[in-house]
Amino acid sequence: MTNKKGKKEDSVRERLDVLGREMTTQSILFHQAIAESAGLSGTDHKFIDLFFQHGSMTAGKLANLTGLTTGATTGVIDRLEKKQLVRRERNPNDRRQVLVVLNEKEAQEKIGPAFKHMQEGLESLYQGFSESDLAIVEEFMIRTITFYKTQIEQIKSNR
Amino acid sequence: MTNKKGKKEDSVRERLDVLGREMTTQSILFHQAIAESAGLSGTDHKFIDLFFQHGSMTAGKLANLTGLTTGATTGVIDRLEKKQLVRRERNPNDRRQVLVVLNEKEAQEKIGPAFKHMQEGLESLYQGFSESDLAIVEEFMIRTITFYKTQIEQIKSNR
Repeated sequence: MTNKKGKKEDSVRERLDVLGREMTTQSILFHQAIAESAGLSGTDHKFIDLFFQHGSMTAGKLANLTGLTTGATTGVIDRLEKKQLVRRERNPNDRRQVLVVLNEKEAQEKIGPAFKHMQEGLESLYQGFSESDLAIVEEFMIRTITFYKTQIEQIKSNR
Repeated sequence: MTNKKGKKEDSVRERLDVLGREMTTQSILFHQAIAESAGLSGTDHKFIDLFFQHGSMTAGKLANLTGLTTGATTGVIDRLEKKQLVRRERNPNDRRQVLVVLNEKEAQEKIGPAFKHMQEGLESLYQGFSESDLAIVEEFMIRTITFYKTQIEQIKSNR
């Protein structure tokens, strides 16, 4: 999927395209490696990360966030519950609703060690970038996230 | 995993940390959505993407790039071969070696449609960024990739 138009002004964008895909690949491999080191599957680990990001939520919201079917989502929750990494609880504000709640202490213990190294690595990642450089990176990330969300919407509506 | 030191200069970094994780989540969901729309699993799709990035390669190299066991890698190759998306071929330069080769036409036909929309979306992603802005983003991406690779090495060596 290389742009072969040969336009000079495309070159930085072509490189970003290649780098973006490589970054995705490496981030997936990174999450897989952390998951494996904690004795979890990649999906299990991604679920736990979602709880850290979004807090307690219903199985429906989890299915929505992950794009998995509700059946597959229930399976993952069951597995995480067996490992005591999450629990099911009635929503105190709406007793008809069941929330899946992260057992934070257990999850931190399982995944924490791999993240300790990460914090050290992050220091050198940011080194040499000014505040205004990082603001550009931030804007680009926000746009990329919007881009992905829009694409996902389009792909799903085209089915 | 919020930094609670409360230093003011950490705030952009904290936001980048959160955005980075959200970006990973959305990129995974994006690839899953493309894969699903083409009737493939996320892993199948990632394998095909690797062929587009790296060209033909041995099963061993694929296992290496994906972090899967050689057994699991063979399983994915078998599945892709049955779908006529890849074929196995002797390396013409080294007859002892078997290469896995992408059937580009078939793969493009299966995955192409979802990527057509993507090209349009990419236009608006880059809009408003100068060449020098994009150079900063490029540098940041290169560092992020190196960061992931280093982290993966460390996690694997700590097992």
